[in-house]
Amino acid sequence: MKRIGNQTLEILSDCYIVGASSLVGEKEKNGTYKNYFKNSVEDDRMGEKTFEKAERKMLSLINKDAVKNSKLKNSDIDLYLGGDLMNQIVSSNYSAEVLQVPFVGVYSACSTITASLGLAACLIDGGGFDNILCSTISHFSAAERQYRYPLEFGNQRQSYSQWTVTAGGGFVVSNKKSNIKIKKVCFGRVQDFGVIDIANMGAAMAPAACDTLCNFFADTKTKPNDYDFIATGDLGKLGSDILRDLISKRGYVLEQNYIDLGHSIYSFEEESYQGGSGAGCSASVLASYIIEKMKSGVFKKVLVAATGALMSTTSNQQGDSIPCVSHLIELVLE
Amino acid sequence: MKRIGNQTLEILSDCYIVGASSLVGEKEKNGTYKNYFKNSVEDDRMGEKTFEKAERKMLSLINKDAVKNSKLKNSDIDLYLGGDLMNQIVSSNYSAEVLQVPFVGVYSACSTITASLGLAACLIDGGGFDNILCSTISHFSAAERQYRYPLEFGNQRQSYSQWTVTAGGGFVVSNKKSNIKIKKVCFGRVQDFGVIDIANMGAAMAPAACDTLCNFFADTKTKPNDYDFIATGDLGKLGSDILRDLISKRGYVLEQNYIDLGHSIYSFEEESYQGGSGAGCSASVLASYIIEKMKSGVFKKVLVAATGALMSTTSNQQGDSIPCVSHLIELVLE
Repeated sequence: MKRIGNQTLEILSDCYIVGASSLVGEKEKNGTYKNYFKNSVEDDRMGEKTFEKAERKMLSLINKDAVKNSKLKNSDIDLYLGGDLMNQIVSSNYSAEVLQVPFVGVYSACSTITASLGLAACLIDGGGFDNILCSTISHFSAAERQYRYPLEFGNQRQSYSQWTVTAGGGFVVSNKKSNIKIKKVCFGRVQDFGVIDIANMGAAMAPAACDTLCNFFADTKTKPNDYDFIATGDLGKLGSDILRDLISKRGYVLEQNYIDLGHSIYSFEEESYQGGSGAGCSASVLASYIIEKMKSGVFKKVLVAATGALMSTTSNQQGDSIPCVSHLIELVLE
Repeated sequence: MKRIGNQTLEILSDCYIVGASSLVGEKEKNGTYKNYFKNSVEDDRMGEKTFEKAERKMLSLINKDAVKNSKLKNSDIDLYLGGDLMNQIVSSNYSAEVLQVPFVGVYSACSTITASLGLAACLIDGGGFDNILCSTISHFSAAERQYRYPLEFGNQRQSYSQWTVTAGGGFVVSNKKSNIKIKKVCFGRVQDFGVIDIANMGAAMAPAACDTLCNFFADTKTKPNDYDFIATGDLGKLGSDILRDLISKRGYVLEQNYIDLGHSIYSFEEESYQGGSGAGCSASVLASYIIEKMKSGVFKKVLVAATGALMSTTSNQQGDSIPCVSHLIELVLE
């Protein structure tokens, strides 16, 4: 691979998404992308005793499906990269145990999928790997009780909060050809604008998305209109408005080709405050809607800049502000 | 890079550790490696209000020192890879904010440093990066209250438990020459032998170390005696005894050239049960003792197989066993 400018990497050899899969909960299935989410679950307990066990069961199904959709076997996978929102990314750890392939855990909160896909693309380009599986997941009920309050507490949500999606997405990145190429990668720098309110993650994450997008545009000497589709995820309505504002001050205008996947994942009728969030938000929409729109030729050149809020409940309780990051990948239809 | 056998990667282009640094607490400074730990802290609060804030302050000092020892500036670092034991790897996230270079978080518990160095070596080999910083840390008091009990509770420790080290290590991996080359990498598969007692992590992790070491020996057609020094970390006394036993059944014998860094980090007089553990255990000893012994020509060919226990307190409370992993790097003196 080759570095362009300060921060962007161009993938030089064959590096394609050869298979993808998503699995979502009922609320997500009833949202904007209902026609694109092929697989959904009605029981968000998945027949398990706890939400945490359900999350990892969903992730294992996603991994299985991604490998199957790639027309590969588990034994063809050289490396598994991924993470999730649970402490110590246990959902991914237990899913890796099921797979029995080499596994490196990635933690980048809701930007885990682009961090993983970005690493996978660089590693495939390096020549030592043929097929790398990347996946991530989030689960509303498991995340809610870990990061905020027990569900039984029935707390009132802030109007500017987002709803953690019960959803996940998996991908196989390969040196075998498909029509969706990972062409560029831009790993982000951690940005912290002093937001300490963990209900307002869109505001906290917008500066990170702005930083990565601007650096990518500068490195590649492109502008937003050079792409058919630009997605951030998951800033929500408020966060994406802040991003539009911040980025316009840097000389870039995000127009009709821009959407935030958190903002858009739920329908208006679902009354989900500022929209969705969670590691599975970008991953599930990328694995379904975006991939499908590319395959059908509607989108030919796509940027996905997932965003992650990197605090913990402990750091928040100790008064620290929320450090955020955004990792970007460029996908091109061939 | 080139894959050898099933799981091992040979780094083909120039890939060297050009700078390393460690920082340890007082108990670690008084242990076996006292002459090799150049930097230590007396106040494990680092003048901060909480142990968590102290941990991230230590990590930032380690990063600064590693970059300085590499005769580089922050702006020369193309990527920062690392993680720690805190939920959501916040120590690393906040340290990444200080650095302002692209950052991808890695979570692999106590094997984080070899996971990060392994990824860094593959990425440097791929050609898009010149210098990658890798670091990790653990802090006894921060880990103890997150994973086990509040210190004030004064619980009795099991005789088979290990002591989380207050220590960390940082490295710069570069395509510029030094005399310590990262020659091979072997990412591990998650192993779970059903251990559910989180005080007995050595027993849980030994099968992971055994799996990675045996696969590496098979891939490279080598045996333990082909190396000057083989280190696992951090199985402790009991765990490393279990490893010796397990690996002998697979036809390999670990002799005088083998040591577990958890078992060895504290002196006998320090009465630290089975020894040390924590992400900083392997990292700090590698950054000091091992690197120094290589530089002075005592060790020419070294394997470091750090091990990680990938459970969370939640998974443990829900009755799940402990999934474990071990990632290996081969270092060669040139």
